[in-house]
Amino acid sequence: MNLPAYSALTNTFTRLYRYQHLGAIAGWDQAAKMPARGNDARGAALAELDVLIHQTLTDESLPGLMSTANTEPLEVTQRANLREMRRDWEQASLLSARLIEAKSLAGSRCEHAWRTQRKENDWRGFLENFTEVVKLSREEAQTLSQARGLSPYDALMDKYEPGSLSTDINIFFGDLKTWLPELIGKVRDKQADETVLEAQGPFPIDRQRALGLDIMGILGFDFSAGRLDVSTHPFCGGVAEDVRITTRYSEDDFMRSMMGIVHETGHARYEQNLPRRTVHLPVGRARSMGIHESQSLSFEMQLGRSPAFLRLISPLVKKHLGDQEAFDSANLARIYTRVKPGLIRVDADELTYPAHVILRYEIERALMNGDIEAADVPELWDQKMMAYLAMDTRHDYQNGCLQDIHWPGGSFGYFPSYTLGAMYAAQYFASIRSLHTNLDTLVAQGDLSPIFDWLNSHIWSQASQWDTNELVQRATGEALNPLHLRSHLKDRYLGADV
Amino acid sequence: MNLPAYSALTNTFTRLYRYQHLGAIAGWDQAAKMPARGNDARGAALAELDVLIHQTLTDESLPGLMSTANTEPLEVTQRANLREMRRDWEQASLLSARLIEAKSLAGSRCEHAWRTQRKENDWRGFLENFTEVVKLSREEAQTLSQARGLSPYDALMDKYEPGSLSTDINIFFGDLKTWLPELIGKVRDKQADETVLEAQGPFPIDRQRALGLDIMGILGFDFSAGRLDVSTHPFCGGVAEDVRITTRYSEDDFMRSMMGIVHETGHARYEQNLPRRTVHLPVGRARSMGIHESQSLSFEMQLGRSPAFLRLISPLVKKHLGDQEAFDSANLARIYTRVKPGLIRVDADELTYPAHVILRYEIERALMNGDIEAADVPELWDQKMMAYLAMDTRHDYQNGCLQDIHWPGGSFGYFPSYTLGAMYAAQYFASIRSLHTNLDTLVAQGDLSPIFDWLNSHIWSQASQWDTNELVQRATGEALNPLHLRSHLKDRYLGADV
Repeated sequence: MNLPAYSALTNTFTRLYRYQHLGAIAGWDQAAKMPARGNDARGAALAELDVLIHQTLTDESLPGLMSTANTEPLEVTQRANLREMRRDWEQASLLSARLIEAKSLAGSRCEHAWRTQRKENDWRGFLENFTEVVKLSREEAQTLSQARGLSPYDALMDKYEPGSLSTDINIFFGDLKTWLPELIGKVRDKQADETVLEAQGPFPIDRQRALGLDIMGILGFDFSAGRLDVSTHPFCGGVAEDVRITTRYSEDDFMRSMMGIVHETGHARYEQNLPRRTVHLPVGRARSMGIHESQSLSFEMQLGRSPAFLRLISPLVKKHLGDQEAFDSANLARIYTRVKPGLIRVDADELTYPAHVILRYEIERALMNGDIEAADVPELWDQKMMAYLAMDTRHDYQNGCLQDIHWPGGSFGYFPSYTLGAMYAAQYFASIRSLHTNLDTLVAQGDLSPIFDWLNSHIWSQASQWDTNELVQRATGEALNPLHLRSHLKDRYLGADV
Repeated sequence: MNLPAYSALTNTFTRLYRYQHLGAIAGWDQAAKMPARGNDARGAALAELDVLIHQTLTDESLPGLMSTANTEPLEVTQRANLREMRRDWEQASLLSARLIEAKSLAGSRCEHAWRTQRKENDWRGFLENFTEVVKLSREEAQTLSQARGLSPYDALMDKYEPGSLSTDINIFFGDLKTWLPELIGKVRDKQADETVLEAQGPFPIDRQRALGLDIMGILGFDFSAGRLDVSTHPFCGGVAEDVRITTRYSEDDFMRSMMGIVHETGHARYEQNLPRRTVHLPVGRARSMGIHESQSLSFEMQLGRSPAFLRLISPLVKKHLGDQEAFDSANLARIYTRVKPGLIRVDADELTYPAHVILRYEIERALMNGDIEAADVPELWDQKMMAYLAMDTRHDYQNGCLQDIHWPGGSFGYFPSYTLGAMYAAQYFASIRSLHTNLDTLVAQGDLSPIFDWLNSHIWSQASQWDTNELVQRATGEALNPLHLRSHLKDRYLGADV
């Protein structure tokens, strides 16, 4: 079929994919390998690449090509590809180069200072830069909002979670708020009587790494197309053809790195199994941040913290870290399901994690919609931490509103993706369990194929073929339904009898 | 001073420098970190970058800007910068984007397959890809040759060694061929009576690495702006602000990695000490590959294999690799000056090394000038190895014509730089020694500043301010003079009395 306009577009977007490849590898290197004094040159090179990508996306030929391509006899995947191209183009062309540059500069200034200010609990100093970041993010939100007919916050959230609306999130999170606090209370009462053996360290880093690599192997990570390295903030980066995950090790603590690796391997397998035929095109990329998190949380929460999986890997843990009773599978399960409200989101257990997200969502939405000002954040934070987790954070900015990298860098609208991901993951596993009633037995025996096969056919191979709602509907037979997360949490933390 | 055309050019070349930064890091990663299956996507991304750089360099505005800038009141460095810009522009504008991309892809494919084919001694498999690489390199050579009025081979060599001509190289190499075989014979006779203690391995890789890092420290490597990693084929890569050197370790052999690190550190210090004010511009980059090799060989041959330096580091070797008599400085000096013809260029001693270069030079020149075909390479290789080093390489492609990365990657015209570098290095050290008659005493005491200061003021800080001849003339008071290499080799290998 001769599709001249569509072909011209795929050429441009293939070129963009290759530019992004260079940025992804240079970005991974910056976090995992780069020596300190390389940063200025790296920052300049990456900013130059951003300019190039923005220029390529806003080339004046694109709107005409997209209109013409729309009249060409496209197949389903091609039409989806065109839809995703239009999305990228719109996102880029609505914002001026001036705003993009100003946002990037303000964000990198604020984030750079934040690294010190957080350590020094310096809210006042932070607020100076942060006010500018908020101002420019609001300007972005306003611009996108007017063009799209969305609220300012929704217009930002749409970058990460296409099609998601606050009205829906409010319903999901509102529902969570009605039952989660009570569930947390019950679970904490129940766990008060449990004895959890603490593993005796130190846990040498090379052994933790060997354990992590073994677990990645069990989880199907393709080492001929990816790596495991170390960085301060763990992430999954690189490109679909060469996925780079990172972790951080502490000799005193094996828990974090081990489960962190399980989490990032979930992201990695999504990328490694995106359809090869279209991986270089917008239709071939991961669907959204929420769907990405649904993969990492399928691996970490649904599979990784399940007693069956911990039974499977308990011998490996003993092999690498020493034969301790604490590494018995039942005790590992107690370690990894221990519920204890804390101040730090990334250290939170499965049950209290959503409270951290809801709090941030409510604050950032108010901030972007202009209902509050940057200076109001700490007070709101204190109120909500007290209300949701009964924790006092007053004057503790370091472990309060200064703990995350998202806001200093100007990323507003991302946080909901974490909890959406948890809900999607629970919904997938409800489907998988209905197909395989003996799932836990299979998992404990080392047969993870029912999970991987389901995720592969329903999520990984689908990439961005469908919008998020349709993807989930096709995969599970229903739209996003937070009841699955509720059932999962009740089953896991109180037992099926409750 | 208002220099609108010149300023516009520096903006473009700063942009190019940033693009090249991304390519340099992605290229380093490809050799040092990338898993095998990432190669196709990496190759495509790097080829796309080559196209972008080519487009940027051949933008139609450049010739006009260069003409106008030429009439602007430029200072000396600015004028040198303009000269180097013009060189880049000429090099790029003579070649089509189609050829650049095809060359990049063919080279990347051939080089990638070569990594396996070399191990498997698979000349036949290699030849399939290599034929295409040769064809495209010849096309490049033809095009450059016609435009420049140079022979095809000289047109390629000019990319690495601006201003160098085969007629000069023939004189230098012809001269070498008159006295080197005899010198090798005399030295081998002399060394026949020497007892060299062999160090007892194994030498654990982490200890070799620790030793390498210590030596890099002594040699002034800036670890806040660079790294040491592992790759199959050692190199110095990355960018001037973040220099990445690599080595390879064998548990049976400490020699190679140790001196390899000294070599690459020479390259690294050149890059790390290029003038910061202009490092992002053509005038601020390293002068040529021959001058680059003159730095690595100043470090490896002139300094590294000198008895004084080996006296300095002997205690470190013992500290890391064990207290053996073999690590006494006198024995280390015997190890590192042992002359023995071998099959592998990178393992060759200082005296037989030029034979490896001359052999390659003669073959690649014939290949690019169209006097022979790709399929003829092994036979010629065998003949010349027999003639120059009396070694039989028949059917041993792995240790014969498949040993180097240059040809698979499509780099023809580079090899002469190695021996030019050795000549330059000998000439520098003749100057340094005439200024510091007690140089060896200082070196043995750990004072390397006379060497670093001289190299910094005469070479590193000069970058591309002058053409190669003028650089060497200014540094040493004379043009390239191969007599210095001859004297150096006679002094070192036969003693000053001969």
